[in-house]
Amino acid sequence: MTPRLRSALLLLCASAFLPVPSPASADEGQWPPEALATLGTARWGELSSRGLAVTAKDLWDGQGGGLLTAVLGLGGCTGALVSEEGLFLTNHHCAFSAIQLASTPEKNYLRDGFVARTRAEEVEARGGAGRVLILSRLVDVTDRVRGPKSAFAKAKGDAARFEAVERAKKEIVAECEKAPDRRCAVAAFEDGRTFRLMEQVEFRDVRLVYAPPRGVGDFGGEEDNFRWPRHTGDFTVLRVYVSPDGKPAPFSKENVPYRPKTWLKVASKGIAEGDVVMIAGYPGRTQRYLTPSAVANQEKWFYPLRGRTFSDLIAILETEGRKDPDTGLRVASAIKSYGNGETNARGQVEGLARNGVLAKAEAEAKELAGFLASRKDLPADWAVAPAELERILAADRAGQDRRFFLEEIEKLTSVLGSALSAVRRADERRKPDLEREAGYQERDLDRARQRERDVTRSLAPSAARKALAYLVSKTQAASRERPVGAFDAAFGKEAAVEAIEAKLSEMDAATALGDETVRLANVDASWTALAASNDPYLKLAVALHPYLVALRAARKETDGALLVWRPRYLSALEALRKSKGKAIYPDANSTLRVSFATVKGYSPREAVTFTPRTSLKGVLEKERGAEPFATPKKVLDAARAADFGRWADPLLGSVPVGFLTDGDTTGGNSGSPTMNGSGEVVGLNFDRVWENVAGDFGWNPERSRNVNVDLRYALWMMERVDGAGALVQELLPSK
Amino acid sequence: MTPRLRSALLLLCASAFLPVPSPASADEGQWPPEALATLGTARWGELSSRGLAVTAKDLWDGQGGGLLTAVLGLGGCTGALVSEEGLFLTNHHCAFSAIQLASTPEKNYLRDGFVARTRAEEVEARGGAGRVLILSRLVDVTDRVRGPKSAFAKAKGDAARFEAVERAKKEIVAECEKAPDRRCAVAAFEDGRTFRLMEQVEFRDVRLVYAPPRGVGDFGGEEDNFRWPRHTGDFTVLRVYVSPDGKPAPFSKENVPYRPKTWLKVASKGIAEGDVVMIAGYPGRTQRYLTPSAVANQEKWFYPLRGRTFSDLIAILETEGRKDPDTGLRVASAIKSYGNGETNARGQVEGLARNGVLAKAEAEAKELAGFLASRKDLPADWAVAPAELERILAADRAGQDRRFFLEEIEKLTSVLGSALSAVRRADERRKPDLEREAGYQERDLDRARQRERDVTRSLAPSAARKALAYLVSKTQAASRERPVGAFDAAFGKEAAVEAIEAKLSEMDAATALGDETVRLANVDASWTALAASNDPYLKLAVALHPYLVALRAARKETDGALLVWRPRYLSALEALRKSKGKAIYPDANSTLRVSFATVKGYSPREAVTFTPRTSLKGVLEKERGAEPFATPKKVLDAARAADFGRWADPLLGSVPVGFLTDGDTTGGNSGSPTMNGSGEVVGLNFDRVWENVAGDFGWNPERSRNVNVDLRYALWMMERVDGAGALVQELLPSK
Repeated sequence: MTPRLRSALLLLCASAFLPVPSPASADEGQWPPEALATLGTARWGELSSRGLAVTAKDLWDGQGGGLLTAVLGLGGCTGALVSEEGLFLTNHHCAFSAIQLASTPEKNYLRDGFVARTRAEEVEARGGAGRVLILSRLVDVTDRVRGPKSAFAKAKGDAARFEAVERAKKEIVAECEKAPDRRCAVAAFEDGRTFRLMEQVEFRDVRLVYAPPRGVGDFGGEEDNFRWPRHTGDFTVLRVYVSPDGKPAPFSKENVPYRPKTWLKVASKGIAEGDVVMIAGYPGRTQRYLTPSAVANQEKWFYPLRGRTFSDLIAILETEGRKDPDTGLRVASAIKSYGNGETNARGQVEGLARNGVLAKAEAEAKELAGFLASRKDLPADWAVAPAELERILAADRAGQDRRFFLEEIEKLTSVLGSALSAVRRADERRKPDLEREAGYQERDLDRARQRERDVTRSLAPSAARKALAYLVSKTQAASRERPVGAFDAAFGKEAAVEAIEAKLSEMDAATALGDETVRLANVDASWTALAASNDPYLKLAVALHPYLVALRAARKETDGALLVWRPRYLSALEALRKSKGKAIYPDANSTLRVSFATVKGYSPREAVTFTPRTSLKGVLEKERGAEPFATPKKVLDAARAADFGRWADPLLGSVPVGFLTDGDTTGGNSGSPTMNGSGEVVGLNFDRVWENVAGDFGWNPERSRNVNVDLRYALWMMERVDGAGALVQELLPSK
Repeated sequence: MTPRLRSALLLLCASAFLPVPSPASADEGQWPPEALATLGTARWGELSSRGLAVTAKDLWDGQGGGLLTAVLGLGGCTGALVSEEGLFLTNHHCAFSAIQLASTPEKNYLRDGFVARTRAEEVEARGGAGRVLILSRLVDVTDRVRGPKSAFAKAKGDAARFEAVERAKKEIVAECEKAPDRRCAVAAFEDGRTFRLMEQVEFRDVRLVYAPPRGVGDFGGEEDNFRWPRHTGDFTVLRVYVSPDGKPAPFSKENVPYRPKTWLKVASKGIAEGDVVMIAGYPGRTQRYLTPSAVANQEKWFYPLRGRTFSDLIAILETEGRKDPDTGLRVASAIKSYGNGETNARGQVEGLARNGVLAKAEAEAKELAGFLASRKDLPADWAVAPAELERILAADRAGQDRRFFLEEIEKLTSVLGSALSAVRRADERRKPDLEREAGYQERDLDRARQRERDVTRSLAPSAARKALAYLVSKTQAASRERPVGAFDAAFGKEAAVEAIEAKLSEMDAATALGDETVRLANVDASWTALAASNDPYLKLAVALHPYLVALRAARKETDGALLVWRPRYLSALEALRKSKGKAIYPDANSTLRVSFATVKGYSPREAVTFTPRTSLKGVLEKERGAEPFATPKKVLDAARAADFGRWADPLLGSVPVGFLTDGDTTGGNSGSPTMNGSGEVVGLNFDRVWENVAGDFGWNPERSRNVNVDLRYALWMMERVDGAGALVQELLPSK
């Protein structure tokens, strides 16, 4: 090639590497299933021209059928049914606690991976991946929850409004769950402007079928988390079991593989740059319509505090984990989770600043004020909504440090967490079932018990003690104006961390809550029984309970007020955007969504271009022989020997490992099937790029990229490395 | 663009981003000036087809003329004359100590930058950039140094051989320096297979004219060091002064700007990707022909130890530097230097492993053994050379930890270093001048005095004490088998760091060496006077001196042996390579070289492409408002206001800042002018990329990239930010 030709080509190429021009950020938006049919022929035509071969009805027919019914809700993750005998795929990090709970220091499936060579070898999966939900029906219930005749409409006061909505939701859920094996939920869309009932079928017998070694499934660890290029084999295969008559049932040896009505085919061909894809899953939460002060609070307070706290907790757990292998295994899942949260927090702070989210929110707030002042035809409520929201949120921010630390104490894996949960449940049990808080009704008992069983494998008293002492000390420091009497009584006012830890050591020596049977009994124990207990952690939980109740009461008050004013604010914002030809779409809310996307790279910063696909070549490049880049020898050997079998990609000259798409995803989308234009699974979403961590607060076509693992990496691992040919045959049947 | 067209284009683009195909790594090699004429018409034709418009003779006419005579040697760096009144350019980091030495806490030119608006405001530059050398003549002196009739040929024993070569070199230098203002050196090429005399003119009155603020000149600091993309304004402008009659002279108010015979034009147009460039300078050292065990020693011993030690020293100096601003300024230069060394060491270890240098050396050693066994026509010496080299180097490695730490003590900026130098000089002075060690002859006195003056601004007793205590403790730990009696006597055997530091505190209280006049007097003091001194540091230096003499004696023995065997080994290697149609070129040895290169990007790892140019856009992207990414406000304001003047690049849409070329460079090339095809300066080389740090041990067309600052960034800073229009006019005269 002559220099001149090359230069001309490079100029042309520069244009090729720019984002594909498409109608106004075509790939923005997380679409609810029933919204697919309303996207319009222009949008479907555009998708079809990009290679999409399925229709809205193929995805969701509104009658409980369609490809999306193969998309599973896991606890905070997503999965996808992919065989006629109930195999499903999700991320390794979504099955992480299931793998951890199945592991022992002797049979360390987390470190070594797991391969069931026969059905009999498939082991029970617990933790988040151990229960799966299939969506069967979606119903708009807005009118019943907050229509003109609802209790909400008549309620006086913010707390009463909150309770009215909660009550309506619980009633709808209770009716829905009269059908057997139903697990239902009412989700607020658009901050409570609308509500939808999700009817789901729950399966409780899930088994681990295949997990890669951690050196593959978590390759790169926190160092690569939220990064591209990526080389993580973040996949795991599980299977849903049902009773011999085909019904959902708890784990039992008699159970048989589930034969779903619908499952997704595994694509026999791979993907290429520029391909259209669909990512379906349960995105947790986006916040794309915040007021300026809410953005500022996230950027300046919440994420910085969360990052620092998690960073400290990681150091504490790691130090303890290094002391013995059993503790190491027990704290692994918590470290991974705090690690992800900490990295995420840093990414949010950096991204919020880089994207100028606050400045944009301020500009739009100003524009909105002018718009509302000029449009006297709009409801008067809308005009005051911005100011009302700022008032509500300002009040909510008082004492938020104290609340943050108390809530982290509740979430910490420890016997205190278990005691607090038991006490709260017993307190709620004194009310009629429909008046109890969500999560503390009869319908939640089974899950509560499972959590107590699961926690047995994660309890690490020495680590929990140090973490708890740290959080208690932080709480006391943040509570000088409103002391937490329960802590002052137990540990002394503004106690030193060492003193708190010493006291906790005494409590650890005396408590019976390390015993699973005791914790299980507490799930069903009465308030009287728990209040009379002499167990030191139960005593502390009983003393702490009123402070947490007060915290939640304040939160309900805030939430009730937001239920009034956020929808009005959103309506005003919608009117403003409509006046400029733009639309509002609902924030993510842990309900099933579909994102249309393209396989494409991006430029993270000046002079750097990321292409959208990686391969085993890059695994070998990153390999260090030490964590987090320690690939197991069997994998290295196969990669170095170029034993690719049928899984190599001709363009890459190796087995594909990861790929980038511009899907609109967030936490909860982990494990989401990434489907090609024909609805066949080509990969699993498992992360976002660093420049897109703050994408929750605003979409950006140049930086919004999600990270997927290519399914051919999983198939290669199973077939060429682990010799699990039967499994590959079930996933990709040769006809 | 349709997806299909885009895909096709992307495939085509993939090929465009591959390295430009060119005859066998055309850009490899650091060419001595007189070798340019022998490169061959094919090579010159190829360069010409890439846009090179100058000839070998334009660069170096062999008569003391040519563009290369405008290329200056600085201490460990390179510079380039660029105006008829003696302005020259080099890197900010090459002028770093000159800027530091001119700074005070009140007039902090390091932090704030320096602009001389008139000639009168130009301030004396000391340190490495304060003396410049212009090469006037190159003569092959091999025959005289080691020809058949030389003392070398007749010498018995390795030490004698070493001394014979040293003596010959000194004699040649002394003859050369009989001409006024000459500074001469004899350099060993190809590990002593050939020798060349370099006749240089030395200028000793250099003044600082323009330096950017450290936030520009060192933007990115250690975090960006050896990295791409890069946004460092690593440039400084100085001027050479001479006596009113045009002769080199020491600093004097009466002096006038030097009017050089030759200077390089500053290019009025910028560069573009694909352009051919030339990089001329004084590369220090490459080691591309090492035996396997020598490679292993670098990878497993030297660089890891250097990295750890420097990392510890940096931590010590930083801690002290934070305690008060004056100490902070005094240790800044040492921290920067250790920082660069530490990062470099990590890069070498990583790069040696990544490039598989050891495996390649082992493979070539095996091939060489087979080749030599099969070629009985070659000298018998050659066949045993590999084994002889391994024997010599194995002996040299005994006690290398001890030697490493003792040498670091000598190099440390401290009064002990000054005392050791004085003692060594006084000892050497007892011999006739031509028998004294290089660096300790009469001709070196002037520089020694200047060093003592310069060090006054860098002495930081508290920091030096802690660093010295650390190094003494390390030395003692590494000297168990051969104790350093001087340390054992002064501090006790295997003394604790704290004990050493306490003793050093006493010594600091008693020493007079903090006084510049005392140190200057010591430069000329006799052995008897120094040996009788009661100054605690002189006493320690006198006690330590014999240990260092022994160290150097052992080194001379090794070097003498290497002078015999390395040339034989190289000749054998050359024969092997010639048999395969390849050539050997001389390793870098701090002599003037030219590298031909191309402006081009690279792929550092899978899925990442680096394009070769950056701009102010990227400065704003990286800006954090905190070191090392803290751009001064005046620069940010101008960049944000897009006040680019005539300096913007149309393709970048902003002022160009950095660019990548595939030049063959190493340490010493810092400040090298990067010239376009017409020999005009377009930038200054200042770094290499991370993947090329280990390029010293082997060239790689895919990763060997050097980093340049675009001169238009410098011109923009001077004109648009600092209003130094007259300076810009002098650099780029409008006709």
